[in-house]
Parts: sequence; structure tokens; C-alpha cells
Amino acid sequence: MKEFDIIARYFKERSHVRRDVQLGIGDDCAVVNVPQNQSLAVTTDTLVGGVHFPNDTPPRAIAHKAVAVNLSDLAAMGAEPAWISLSLSMPDVDEHWLDEFSLGLQELTEYYSVQLIGGDTVKGPLSITLTAQGFVPKDQALTRAKAKPGDWLYVTGTLGDAGLGLDMLQGRMDVPPKHRNFVANRLNYPTPRVLVGTVLRRIASSCIDVSDGLIADVQHILNASHCGAVLQVDKLPLSEAMRDSVLAEQGIRYALTAGDDYELLFTVSEEQKGNLDLAMATASVSVTCIGQLNGVQGKLELRDGKERYAFEGKGYQHFS
Amino acid sequence: MKEFDIIARYFKERSHVRRDVQLGIGDDCAVVNVPQNQSLAVTTDTLVGGVHFPNDTPPRAIAHKAVAVNLSDLAAMGAEPAWISLSLSMPDVDEHWLDEFSLGLQELTEYYSVQLIGGDTVKGPLSITLTAQGFVPKDQALTRAKAKPGDWLYVTGTLGDAGLGLDMLQGRMDVPPKHRNFVANRLNYPTPRVLVGTVLRRIASSCIDVSDGLIADVQHILNASHCGAVLQVDKLPLSEAMRDSVLAEQGIRYALTAGDDYELLFTVSEEQKGNLDLAMATASVSVTCIGQLNGVQGKLELRDGKERYAFEGKGYQHFS
Repeated sequence: MKEFDIIARYFKERSHVRRDVQLGIGDDCAVVNVPQNQSLAVTTDTLVGGVHFPNDTPPRAIAHKAVAVNLSDLAAMGAEPAWISLSLSMPDVDEHWLDEFSLGLQELTEYYSVQLIGGDTVKGPLSITLTAQGFVPKDQALTRAKAKPGDWLYVTGTLGDAGLGLDMLQGRMDVPPKHRNFVANRLNYPTPRVLVGTVLRRIASSCIDVSDGLIADVQHILNASHCGAVLQVDKLPLSEAMRDSVLAEQGIRYALTAGDDYELLFTVSEEQKGNLDLAMATASVSVTCIGQLNGVQGKLELRDGKERYAFEGKGYQHFS
Repeated sequence: MKEFDIIARYFKERSHVRRDVQLGIGDDCAVVNVPQNQSLAVTTDTLVGGVHFPNDTPPRAIAHKAVAVNLSDLAAMGAEPAWISLSLSMPDVDEHWLDEFSLGLQELTEYYSVQLIGGDTVKGPLSITLTAQGFVPKDQALTRAKAKPGDWLYVTGTLGDAGLGLDMLQGRMDVPPKHRNFVANRLNYPTPRVLVGTVLRRIASSCIDVSDGLIADVQHILNASHCGAVLQVDKLPLSEAMRDSVLAEQGIRYALTAGDDYELLFTVSEEQKGNLDLAMATASVSVTCIGQLNGVQGKLELRDGKERYAFEGKGYQHFS
């Protein structure tokens, strides 16, 4: 099959259609329109087979994750997703693989009303690069840089599940049978917190998604905002699956260092706490306060209750 | 070196800065603003080491080509380039390679006032994916689909040089010493026809860039516009280097089938021919009329003078 046939059969015909797309797949460029008074948020993430996912990951999961990772970046800016471009590098044309992959892409893009507007298919080692674009009202984008001392540190959902899922699938950890699906899905089918991100626009002072691991991602906020923080390990939200699978200390380790959870980590000023509670009252995802920022620039202190919590460990680093 | 250090040292500090970029490299997304009354043109291209360029290609050339290929797609829509996102997959951190690569990126992005707004660096086989974005006034984008029977077929510059350059560098062809630099540069440092593209907005009825080879790319216009064409092989613009290196018939073969020239191929109605001549009189690149469209849907006929020209050959196909 030729490149043009692949694009037409598996991607163009299965794409969700948006009215702001003037020209989609099939020309030298896509042509799209951004609404007035909206800025455009743009993000790119690459997933390499054997590095970011085991090569035997189901193609539907690879597609889901590639989209989710990018939508999660949009969510962390408070942006509403609109379009994605896909670059798919694969060693050969496996029609079954392509069929499953494009269905995974279709599921998530339809759910979030995102249109695939273009891309490239090339022969090479398995690798997926997605660029996602979304809208955020002018001057309302959430960044990492505007947290202030005194702000409270929050996180959505539960932490560490994806890391536990990876260890389970690779035979390093035992998980009780009733939780296995849950942790595998947390790894392979993460949920980008798109709606929460848009709700946080007027409430949060800073926001990031947890992709490198909590410690690393808190540190990104601290560095960008020139703050420090105290993080309460006794407050870390752990899933029932996590609590049933590992001892408390190991659960904390997963929550602090495992990447790939794609929860939102954000800060809220004392004055906005009430608004956060109101806004989240009807949301389908929980938020948990896990600490507070202070003025000790760049320094992250871990505590268990009132005691200092000694911990050596970092988040995910690509080239360390 | 860690991912964040790589991005900061080699890419962020060296990036051209534009006023429409509210937030560049360093957060979950870039945040950018599209001017009113402009649509956004978006394109993605991937270059894989060993597939799209020999692995020993100078890193400066790889960067140049990755940017040029994407800007060429924008040019083919009549769009003015604005921003690029880079995904760089590399097997390990080679600081000399990164230094040269990022300088190549810097040269071309500064020349075209393009800002690198984000991306991803990952560990994996050498591969570069770029997404480029540019502006085109609403409803003025040049597509492949609006050519009409009777329109004239034009191409910028000369054809086949990049293909000759690849064959020369890989030892399959001899090129006289005085032309070697020229053909190597046509392969490694292609010039995206950005200015010509914007000039063609109100003149051309369709446009595409020659990346898969002339025959394949003419066919894309014919298929999208439901036309046929007669292409005069005796009119194909060949460089002095080409004419000095190969016999006439082989020159025609390069011009018809070699990809990677990144010239613009476009159609102009009889009424617009005068405007084209006027507009191109002061341009630094030549344009050549190489044929005419007709109503024989999808059929491309080659002629040498008034005689039919027999030819078997196609353009570049990724998975054939």
C-alpha cells in the first residue's frame, strides 16, 4: 500500500470533522481558523516504541496514549483541544496494526471533538509524534510561572497507578486480580483532564500535568515561579488498587516518582480555595490538597504529618 | 545532559523571537496569536535517518532540510511562515551534533523570521519531525484542487538537481568538479519558495511543491482538480550542472522522477499569464511553462515537441 492510500483509508475517512477546518488531510497543508479573542496553544510529544511504551502494547492503546498525552498538555494550559497532526513512523505496513491504531485515534478524537488535520507516514522504526492545538481565551492560559508563596498545591485523581501498571505488565509487581484492569488502563488509556483544565483557568495560579513524576513536576512549577514548597506525603491520593497492592512506603514512592499519570498538578491561592471547591463539586474527578508553597526558592521539602520525610528519588529523565 | 538542559541550551537560547508568541519553549504548551482575517496553515513532515537522508549527512544540513521541507509546504499554500515545533529523536546526546544541528535550525528560522515554539527531545533512532505553521489571508490559500482545463502548468527553478546530488554523493554518478557544490547544496540545503508562494496567491489556480517528483506531483494536481495535462519534456528547466553531467534523456528522467527539489509547481489561467509575468519580473527565481491542462480527467501525457514521449517511471513512494 502506498502512503496516500494509508492516509486516505485509515485516517482521513475516520476523522472527526470540525467546522473551523477549512481544509483537512490531503493538500500540502491543512488550513484552519482560530476564533477571535482566543490564543492558540500548541504542543508536540513523541512516543518511541521500546522507549515510551513496550513494543507489544496494543496499537489501540498506543494511539490513545499519544493523543491523551498531548491533550493533557493542552489541559494543563486550560486550553480546549481542537486539532491534531500525526506523524507515524513504522517499519512496514501492517494493516491490522493500522486498523487498530486508527480506531484508537478515532475514539479519543471523537470524544473530545478533535479533528486530525494532517501529518506524515514514513518508513522507519515505530514512533508516533503528535502535535495538538487548542484554544484558550486571550491572557487566560495557565502557566507554570505564576504560583505565589502561600498558594496551595493540588492534584487531580490518584498518583502512581501508571507506574504500578507498567511494573505489573512487565512482571516486576503483583497486583490483586480485581485491580489488574484498572492499573493496566491507567497506563495504557490515560484520561487527559481536559474539562478540569478549562475550569481551572480563572481559579489556579499555575498548572502542569504529571508526566515526569510528581517530584519532578512540582519542581518545574517551583523553578518557573521562584517558590519553594512543603509536600505532605501523608496526603498523596493513592488508589484502592495501589493501597491493596503495595505497602504504604512503596505507594508513596510510586506517587512521587512514577511518570505517565497525566493528572493535573496546580496551585490555588487562599482566596480562590472556595471557588475551587465550588467548581469541583460537580466534577467527576477528585482533587486533593497535597501541600503549600513558600518563599524558599526552588526548594521542595517532603513531610509526613509534621515530620520531615527522607526520600531519595527523582522523576523520569530522558537522557540521564 | 538532561532533556531540559538540551532544550534550554541548544534550542531556546538560539531561537528567533516573534511578537505573536506569547509563550515559547518551556511550558506544557506554547501560546501564540493568529492575526485577524488570517487562516492558519499547518504542515508536518518527518525525516528519518537512513531513509530520508544518509546517516552521515551533516547535522546542519539535516536541520536545514527539515525546516525547508516544511516551509516549502507552507509556500505551496501561499502561506507566510510563523512558527515551528520540533520533535528530535536521537540515540544519544552528541553535543557536537546538537550544536551543528541547532545552528542549522537557527540560520533558516532567522532568515524567514520563524520562531521555534516548542517540541520534544526523546531517546530513539535518529528522526526529526517538524510541524510548521503560517498565515494565509482568509480564503486565499492555494490548493491542489482548483486547476481548470486550459490552465498553463508552471514550475519554479530547475528540476532533478537534488536527485543528481544524491546519486553523486552515493557514488552512482559523476558530476564535473565545478558543479559538485551546486548539486550537493540542492540536495542538502533546498530553498523553500516562500516569497513566490505568497506572490502566487492571487495569480495561480493551484499549487503544490515538487517533493515526490514532477510526474507524481503533477498527478496530485490532476487528481484533485479532475483534469488531465500535456507536459512538454522539451520545456523542462534543467540546470547547467544537469546538462553538463548527463545526456538529455537522463536529464529528463531526473526532472520527471527525482524528488526533493522543493520547487513550486502551479497552474495559471490564460487571463492571469500577464500578471504572472509582471509579478515574476523582479523575482530572483525563474518560472517556466512546461505544459497545459485539459479535460481528460487524471491523464498525464508527455510530449517532446509535437511527438508523444514514451516514458516508464514514477515519483517517490514510501511503502511501494
